[in-house]
Amino acid sequence: MPRKSESRTTTVGDKAVLSAIRTAASDIHRKIVHRRKPTMKFPVRSLTNVKYHPDRGFFEIAGQKKERTLTVNTVKTFAQTLRMIALSKELVQNDDIATKREAYYVSKNWEEARFHEQPESDTVMDDVEAFFAVNREQLGFIPEEKGGDIAGKLIVLDRDRDTGKALRIDCTKFGSGAYSIPISVEHLQFETNAAFILVIETAGMFQRLVKHNYWKHANCILVSMGGVPTRACRRFVRRLADFKNIPVYVFVDGDPYGISNIYRTLKVGSGNAAHLNEFFCVPQARFLGITPQDIVDYKLPTHPLKDVDIKRARDAMKNDPFIRHHKEWIKAMELLLKMGVRAEQQALAKHGLNYVIDNYLPEKLRRPERFLP
Amino acid sequence: MPRKSESRTTTVGDKAVLSAIRTAASDIHRKIVHRRKPTMKFPVRSLTNVKYHPDRGFFEIAGQKKERTLTVNTVKTFAQTLRMIALSKELVQNDDIATKREAYYVSKNWEEARFHEQPESDTVMDDVEAFFAVNREQLGFIPEEKGGDIAGKLIVLDRDRDTGKALRIDCTKFGSGAYSIPISVEHLQFETNAAFILVIETAGMFQRLVKHNYWKHANCILVSMGGVPTRACRRFVRRLADFKNIPVYVFVDGDPYGISNIYRTLKVGSGNAAHLNEFFCVPQARFLGITPQDIVDYKLPTHPLKDVDIKRARDAMKNDPFIRHHKEWIKAMELLLKMGVRAEQQALAKHGLNYVIDNYLPEKLRRPERFLP
Repeated sequence: MPRKSESRTTTVGDKAVLSAIRTAASDIHRKIVHRRKPTMKFPVRSLTNVKYHPDRGFFEIAGQKKERTLTVNTVKTFAQTLRMIALSKELVQNDDIATKREAYYVSKNWEEARFHEQPESDTVMDDVEAFFAVNREQLGFIPEEKGGDIAGKLIVLDRDRDTGKALRIDCTKFGSGAYSIPISVEHLQFETNAAFILVIETAGMFQRLVKHNYWKHANCILVSMGGVPTRACRRFVRRLADFKNIPVYVFVDGDPYGISNIYRTLKVGSGNAAHLNEFFCVPQARFLGITPQDIVDYKLPTHPLKDVDIKRARDAMKNDPFIRHHKEWIKAMELLLKMGVRAEQQALAKHGLNYVIDNYLPEKLRRPERFLP
Repeated sequence: MPRKSESRTTTVGDKAVLSAIRTAASDIHRKIVHRRKPTMKFPVRSLTNVKYHPDRGFFEIAGQKKERTLTVNTVKTFAQTLRMIALSKELVQNDDIATKREAYYVSKNWEEARFHEQPESDTVMDDVEAFFAVNREQLGFIPEEKGGDIAGKLIVLDRDRDTGKALRIDCTKFGSGAYSIPISVEHLQFETNAAFILVIETAGMFQRLVKHNYWKHANCILVSMGGVPTRACRRFVRRLADFKNIPVYVFVDGDPYGISNIYRTLKVGSGNAAHLNEFFCVPQARFLGITPQDIVDYKLPTHPLKDVDIKRARDAMKNDPFIRHHKEWIKAMELLLKMGVRAEQQALAKHGLNYVIDNYLPEKLRRPERFLP
C-alpha cells in the first residue's frame, strides 16, 4: 500500500504537538526514575469552570485544575492516559487519523489498559486534549461526524497525500453540487476575494442559493451547516474568516433553537467543551436573520412557540453568559416570547420562492451594522 | 438578478413531465366544461399495496388505486392538488426547485386553498408524485435533507446555470475533502472507468479511506452515506451504477440496523414510499460487510445486541419481503441472533487502524461472489 511509503511533510503544528508530547512524557519518566509519584494536571471541564470574555469572544475555561497522581487507585486510568498520548504521537508522526470510536477499538490490544466502553475512552481523550491545550484534531483524533458544504468564491488549497502535489479546489466549479468539508481542516489553505461568508442553517435554503448562483452576484461564500454546525464546519469557517478578515453572516430559523443553539454554538462555542472553544468558535459571526423583528417586518407565516422553545428562550436569558451579555439579544428573545411564535427561514417563500434572493438578502445586506451581535 | 434572464435548456425529462401535466389538466378541464364531475386516480400508498419482485429488485406498488372526485367534501383537497400541480409546472418551466417546506409556505398565498400544516401539503405532494408516477425531483420538488459525499475515480458532469457552460467535476481532486451530492441529481452525467462503487455507512470510515487515497489503488468510487442514505444519495448511486454497469458494494456496521435499515433501504427502497422505489433503489447493490460471519472470522470486538436490535432482526425475518426472499439473509440474521452480538465497521481497528485497507477490504474483494445478496 503506497500509504506506507509516502512522502510526508510535517507541519509546524505537528512539530509543536510532538514536542509537547515528548516533554510531558520525559517529565513523567524522570519522576518515575527518581522514585517520585508522577502526576498530570488537567483543567476541569465543566460549566462551573467557564468564563465569557466579550472582548475575546468565546467561552473560556477558568483556572480550576484536577490532578491525577499515579497511585494504586488511579493506575489504570493513568496507564490509559499514557497509551492514548502514545497513540496520538503515532498518529501525528504517520500523518494518520483515528476517530473516537477507532481509538476505543485500538485499545482492545492494550491488554489490562483496554477500555470496556467507549465513553471511558472518550473521557480520557478529552482529558488529553485539555492537557495539551490543543484541539483533538491536532492530536490526530477526529470526530465521527462530517458536515458542512461550501459553494462560491473560494479556492481551497489541499495536497495530494501520495504525490505531495498541491490541489486547488475551486468552489465556483461544482454546479448544483458543493465542496464537502473534511473532518479535519487544520491543513487547508485558502484563496478568496469574497466580500462575506453566508452561513446557512438548512440544506434546502443552501441548495436554493446554489441553484441560482447567488454567490456569483453577491460575491460571497455559501456555507451549509445542516443544523448545529459540526466541529469541522466551525473550525473551517473560523480559519477562513481569520485568514482575510472576512465578515461572517449567519442565516438561520427565527426561533430559540436557531438563535441559542445553532448561532450561539457557531459564534462562542458550547459550554461543556470550553477547553477547545478557542479553536471552534467564530467570534466575528453576526446574526443576519431570521430576527424576531423580521417576523413583523416581513409579515412571515409563523408557528406557535412550543413549550420546549419557551423553556429554551427563558434558559438562555437566565443562564447563557453570551445572551445575557448582549442587551440586543435579551430584547430579541423578549419580543419572540411576547409574540409567542417562531418563523423558519423558508417562510420567506410566502412572498415567492426567490423573494429571499431578490429582496430579503439584498435589503438585509445593505445594513450589516444592524445585524444582531 | 441574472436568474430571470438566463438561457435555459429543457431536458427530455422536463418535457415529458410538462406534457403529462398538460394532459391531466386538459382532462379535468374538459370534464368540467362538459358539466361532469372531474376525478383523479392515485395509487394507494401503503405497505398493504406493495409487491417484491426479486427479478426487478425493488418494492413495487401494487394495483390498488383511490379515486378523488370533485364533490362538496373534497373540493378543498381537490383544489390544493391542482394548485400543487400548477406549482410543479411553474418550477419545471423555470428550472426552479422547491423543498416540501417551501411549497407549504408558497401555499400561504393560495387563499382558501392554503394549507394549515405542512403534513397536509406533504401528503398532497406525495399524491401528485404518485399520480404522475415520476419522482418528486422531476416535478421540481426537492427533499429538505442533503447527504452523500463522493471521492475517487469519477468525473461528474454538471452545467453552470448562468452561462450554460459544462462543468467537469473531478472527484480525484478533492484532497481530504469530497464532492457533496446535490439534493437533485437527475441532470448529472458521468465519466468513469472505476471497477466498483464502495458505499460506506460512517463518515469516519469514509474519511479514513479518503485520507489514504484508497480509491486510487483500488480503482473505485467511494460514497459516504452518513447513516440511512438520503433520496439524493440513493438516486445518485443508482444512476451512476446503471450508467456503466458498475458493481455496487456496501460496507456498513454488522448489526440489524446496518442490514435491514441502511442496506435494505439502499438496495430495494422503503416500504412506505413504494410508489417511487423504482427510482430510489440500487438493485445491483451487494453486501460486502460487516457480515455476521466476519465477526467470527476476524475475531471482532462486539457489543451485545440490544432489545431493539433483536426486535428489528425478528421483524425483518418475519415481515420484510426482501429478507424473507433470501435464504442467505435469513441464515445471517439467525447467526447474529444466536451470537447475541453486533460489530461496528470500525471494530476492525482492533487489528490496527489500517487493517481495513491492508487486509480486510482486499481479502473481501477477492471474492465478490461471496457477498450477501
